Amino acid sequence: MSIPFFFEPSLPNLPAHFTLSADTAKHCIQVLRMKEGEMMMLTDGVGNRFDATLLSANKTQAVVLLSNKTEVAPITPISGIAISFVKNPARMEWFLEKATEIGIRHFYPLISTRTEKHHFKAARWESIIVSAMLQSQQSWKPILHQPIQFNELIKMKSEGLKMIAHCEKAEKAPLQNLALTNNQLILIGPEGDFSPVEIDAAIHQGFTPVSLGSNRLRTETAGLVAAVLLQNR
Amino acid sequence: MSIPFFFEPSLPNLPAHFTLSADTAKHCIQVLRMKEGEMMMLTDGVGNRFDATLLSANKTQAVVLLSNKTEVAPITPISGIAISFVKNPARMEWFLEKATEIGIRHFYPLISTRTEKHHFKAARWESIIVSAMLQSQQSWKPILHQPIQFNELIKMKSEGLKMIAHCEKAEKAPLQNLALTNNQLILIGPEGDFSPVEIDAAIHQGFTPVSLGSNRLRTETAGLVAAVLLQNR
Repeated sequence: MSIPFFFEPSLPNLPAHFTLSADTAKHCIQVLRMKEGEMMMLTDGVGNRFDATLLSANKTQAVVLLSNKTEVAPITPISGIAISFVKNPARMEWFLEKATEIGIRHFYPLISTRTEKHHFKAARWESIIVSAMLQSQQSWKPILHQPIQFNELIKMKSEGLKMIAHCEKAEKAPLQNLALTNNQLILIGPEGDFSPVEIDAAIHQGFTPVSLGSNRLRTETAGLVAAVLLQNR
Repeated sequence: MSIPFFFEPSLPNLPAHFTLSADTAKHCIQVLRMKEGEMMMLTDGVGNRFDATLLSANKTQAVVLLSNKTEVAPITPISGIAISFVKNPARMEWFLEKATEIGIRHFYPLISTRTEKHHFKAARWESIIVSAMLQSQQSWKPILHQPIQFNELIKMKSEGLKMIAHCEKAEKAPLQNLALTNNQLILIGPEGDFSPVEIDAAIHQGFTPVSLGSNRLRTETAGLVAAVLLQNR
């Protein structure tokens, strides 16, 4: 069995005793029934990973001793996906889980002209992202940004390659054929696609139109295909 | 709004009247409330697509007139994924939906040494595959094969490139770096991975070991990553 791995956003420098957050403590003590002296790993989600030994545990509090610290380099390229909200929230949650496992680092929930609903479940989505990060043994937590209007997003300052995936008939490069860059951002539209006006505006702001294959894909599938191709060129 | 698109496995030659199956008729009449004279598209799932006009409809029967027939070339490459059953059936269903949208043509539910459960829900999975095929506007239905033991599968006669994705430390090529072939098959293991004995046996049968990136992926996520890379090299 692998060593339990938890997220604690505020970890101190070594050597240190550290009181686990209520959620982590509950998971260690009540779910995994860990005992004093047992080992775990903790990450702060910004590249630091610690070994930790459970020193004391009761119903209200669990304290660990932090030992070895490992600095984990971020996965490159650093990729962001700005994806329209979809009607069925379960589909967005699947997307966030899978794209986190695959290594996407920035999520921008996008409101475009044809986006129908935009219900932002910040806490729930954050918790899905953390679980997927731990499941896939990563020490960099993806950043879930605040929902953003299409017109604001395309004007956002960003380095590297910027792409827009759309379904209109037009000249588009297959995403996997573009040259690799360290930073990259792609826009994924709603079920009814981006509007022609939006596509033009994005191109005007330096976004490259790309295709994600010949099939018509659901929004969250398009997001996943983009995630795989961004991380595996 | 796009024209409704349905699957009917046994479509006659033109010109012809055709009585819709009970499921399709129910969807047309009771869900979409289609009226006589309205148009739909039908596919037989093996590359033929027909325009059809609703001629008569009542509670028990709906008849259409088939007109234009289009022969749709199959998507190439033709890819198969043999994937271990997973414990949570929702995850397998999600994989089948997404991999169908992406264009995978053969699914082999796999029973390997470390596969924990293998509950084959043939009718439900078939229906998920059909929905995803129609959703993504495809006219070739992926084939859901019977569950198969690992040792039988690796001895199965098959053309083209054969690959095994595993997590053991060993020499592995990134899947996206392999030369493109028209036919390809990949094996995806259970949560605990394939056993070393299984990996050796597959290599002995001509399977190339491949990696799907540096992160640890859940079985169904590995299947999805493989699907995207197989169809987008």
